[in-house]
Amino acid sequence: MTAASFDRVAIIGVGLIGGSFALALKRAGLARRVIGVGRGRANLERALALGVIDEIAIDAAAACADADLVFLATPVGQMAAVMAAIAPVLPASVIVTDGGSTKQDVVALARQHLGARLSRFVPAHPIAGGEKTGAEAAHVDLFEDRKVIVTPLAETAPDAKATVVAAWRACGAQVFELTPQLHDRVYAAVSHLPHLLAFALIDGFAAKPHADLLFEFAGRGLADTLRLAGGSAEMWRDIALANREALLAELDDHMARLGHARAMLAASDGAGLEAMFTNARKSASSRRRPGSRANAQTSPD
Amino acid sequence: MTAASFDRVAIIGVGLIGGSFALALKRAGLARRVIGVGRGRANLERALALGVIDEIAIDAAAACADADLVFLATPVGQMAAVMAAIAPVLPASVIVTDGGSTKQDVVALARQHLGARLSRFVPAHPIAGGEKTGAEAAHVDLFEDRKVIVTPLAETAPDAKATVVAAWRACGAQVFELTPQLHDRVYAAVSHLPHLLAFALIDGFAAKPHADLLFEFAGRGLADTLRLAGGSAEMWRDIALANREALLAELDDHMARLGHARAMLAASDGAGLEAMFTNARKSASSRRRPGSRANAQTSPD
Repeated sequence: MTAASFDRVAIIGVGLIGGSFALALKRAGLARRVIGVGRGRANLERALALGVIDEIAIDAAAACADADLVFLATPVGQMAAVMAAIAPVLPASVIVTDGGSTKQDVVALARQHLGARLSRFVPAHPIAGGEKTGAEAAHVDLFEDRKVIVTPLAETAPDAKATVVAAWRACGAQVFELTPQLHDRVYAAVSHLPHLLAFALIDGFAAKPHADLLFEFAGRGLADTLRLAGGSAEMWRDIALANREALLAELDDHMARLGHARAMLAASDGAGLEAMFTNARKSASSRRRPGSRANAQTSPD
Repeated sequence: MTAASFDRVAIIGVGLIGGSFALALKRAGLARRVIGVGRGRANLERALALGVIDEIAIDAAAACADADLVFLATPVGQMAAVMAAIAPVLPASVIVTDGGSTKQDVVALARQHLGARLSRFVPAHPIAGGEKTGAEAAHVDLFEDRKVIVTPLAETAPDAKATVVAAWRACGAQVFELTPQLHDRVYAAVSHLPHLLAFALIDGFAAKPHADLLFEFAGRGLADTLRLAGGSAEMWRDIALANREALLAELDDHMARLGHARAMLAASDGAGLEAMFTNARKSASSRRRPGSRANAQTSPD
């Protein structure tokens, strides 16, 4: 389908994700005018100067009153207040989407606060990040060949979902569809747990008397672990708490498996360890090329 | 100091590590003739054709009888037999070194098998690897700016240690010195435990009903984990068993820390989680540039 174009796009939270979405929509010719709102005035002025947005609104309600697309790109902790503020002014034909890393909690907030506009809400999670933050970090290519997962509700209007999917595709993204529950379960395993493990491992290194030696000799194999453990403590605290149930389940599974590995090691059970390693190796080797296996079942039409 | 040059270098196990050491020594003008021994005849023929070695010996004893430098680059599992075979023929002035990933076990084997030549043995661990194996994978630059750790014994002759350090430096490596005990403790933490965790995590993914989705959505943050879990199951089984005590201690520390994180998550203790994440983040951020902190205390003269 051809992507719909938007007359007024409201970006709530003009940072890396919100700003890059604005730039990519503009490049695709899909956004005539972008209105930005956020808590930091200096950041908004910078966004305006950089051409990321065309206009600064005084608050979220003012930005959304005439918008045909609203992108909620604030931390999840601010979403309830934003939703409550904009719900009364949203036009009937508006489309609202978000960029939160967890989806069941955002869906619950939408059910609580969006009222009659719930059917216009298309929850989404763009899988893109970076170490820099703020409008300065926004770039037009951020979503090129990256994944975006949409998690529509039973109430979501089909046209709203199709429009959001088309908009993300116009930004260069591959779009997938999961339920909010499955999204949170998958991301507990592939993102939230690995971050927690990295934080715990590096916290443990730092606590040892020979910590300096550990960091000196942490090689290539720990580069990603160090990067994961370098993520924002506040953001990952919020994500861990937001996806607490799913993360606890994944952590328990992992700890049970580590306990099994420990028992094999303690018993010098080489055959058992080799069987576990071989199973992991086979899975890793056959599946380590990201993007090589488009999964039709999870790709929305 | 100027590196000594060797008239005859015996490489026992002409693979990625042994072959690359031969090539780098030759490039540095330090090896007049390289004699290769190994279990696979085809691999040795290939090494000869590629100029990695100059001569194939029929067995380890034949290769070492006139050697002034012997490099044991076999899996640790074969070292006892090799040491027993070469000990009777080693010249008094020989220097023997190795490339094993664990050091206390190799040192124990050397004490058991090298007899009068123990003082000529300089245990070492070059931190370099790759996904390819065999003489075909050898390349002259493998050790450029990589770390090599030497773990001399009280009995090691100072001239033997100095010669091995100089040879590795001539290959482009940064050389560090640790005791065998500390080496094994450090590598249990920075390499063996992370491999075990990666194998366990990916083994866990593979066991889940939605495994395909997990591999589909495993992003950039899991690239290293997938690479670690793609390592040789046999090699990592042997390393885990060889460094069993140190690895068990690190695993127990890590599991206790995970248990603490779990308790905080279960109690929705955001402040506690944030404190752990912040501590890890600070350590990771200040120490994530490999090679940026040369540590004089661990650098041998």
